Amino acid sequence: MLTSRQIAEARQRALEFYEKAHIVLTDEEKANIEVADFGLDDLEHSGLELVVYVNTDRVCAKEMVLFPHQTCPEHRHPDINGKPGKEETFRCRWGKVYLYVPGEATAHPKAKPPEGHETYYTVWHEVELNPGQQYTLLPDTLHWFQAGPEGAVISEFSTTSMDEFDIFTDPDINRIPQIVE
Amino acid sequence: MLTSRQIAEARQRALEFYEKAHIVLTDEEKANIEVADFGLDDLEHSGLELVVYVNTDRVCAKEMVLFPHQTCPEHRHPDINGKPGKEETFRCRWGKVYLYVPGEATAHPKAKPPEGHETYYTVWHEVELNPGQQYTLLPDTLHWFQAGPEGAVISEFSTTSMDEFDIFTDPDINRIPQIVE
Repeated sequence: MLTSRQIAEARQRALEFYEKAHIVLTDEEKANIEVADFGLDDLEHSGLELVVYVNTDRVCAKEMVLFPHQTCPEHRHPDINGKPGKEETFRCRWGKVYLYVPGEATAHPKAKPPEGHETYYTVWHEVELNPGQQYTLLPDTLHWFQAGPEGAVISEFSTTSMDEFDIFTDPDINRIPQIVE
Repeated sequence: MLTSRQIAEARQRALEFYEKAHIVLTDEEKANIEVADFGLDDLEHSGLELVVYVNTDRVCAKEMVLFPHQTCPEHRHPDINGKPGKEETFRCRWGKVYLYVPGEATAHPKAKPPEGHETYYTVWHEVELNPGQQYTLLPDTLHWFQAGPEGAVISEFSTTSMDEFDIFTDPDINRIPQIVE
């Protein structure tokens, strides 16, 4: 669980990354940056900061920040009520991100799963994304990603986000943040 | 019709705007910037430069450039084969854009339609977008937009783009570019 203070600090820190990437946000967006710790209580290693620009019943666009070496844990977006799951394209805007997807395991992967959680990282085909590079994930594809040593800013273009339906490999994960005052 | 030389010049000019907005493009994207003159042969006034990041059967994302006072002519995205038309969100990244949509006509609009084409501009509710501001258009909504005096860089997040089905108010318009050597 995140405290209000942790959220405020993470928002402030995320702003520095949006500035480095020259991403212009409104004051309202800045004040409402979403801070996700996935219920693991270790934001420094497992977490994600994001601004959702739009999320209708057809289209979603987000601007995400990963702090240096911060990891978005392995998950997939399943089909829901017979409709295909979320399709997403990640485009790196600043920094560097290592994305892992199904396929031949990369011999010497650059990212390391957060300590103690190694079991829940099962796909190891590495895709390195630098600014201007992007990758499109089809629905229901397991994936996880981790920023390089400088952190990363990543645009996501996708179908509707319904985070509550995401399936994480780690059973301890809770995508919807719980906040304590 | 555009000549190869006009396209090369417009691409070079568009790159300057992407740089001002700190948008990082790959060499391949730079070499293939789409230059649309809508068949009106007056790119300076009626036109659009764009990079399509992704366009699947569900999602599309683009980065558009408008030169100073350049106009994307009035059009709408109709339903196709019983499926709802394109839904799009414009987010201004750099510069300024005036977007016109149905609704109460703005008394003193900041944009002027390209000379001789005034008849084909029929919606006059003005939405001014500065960096960080955005607007979502529902399917089949007439709209047109024009950059302010400095030009503009605009991200578009949308459902699938099928430009060939767009309906322009001006019957002389041909969205699919014709290139002469």
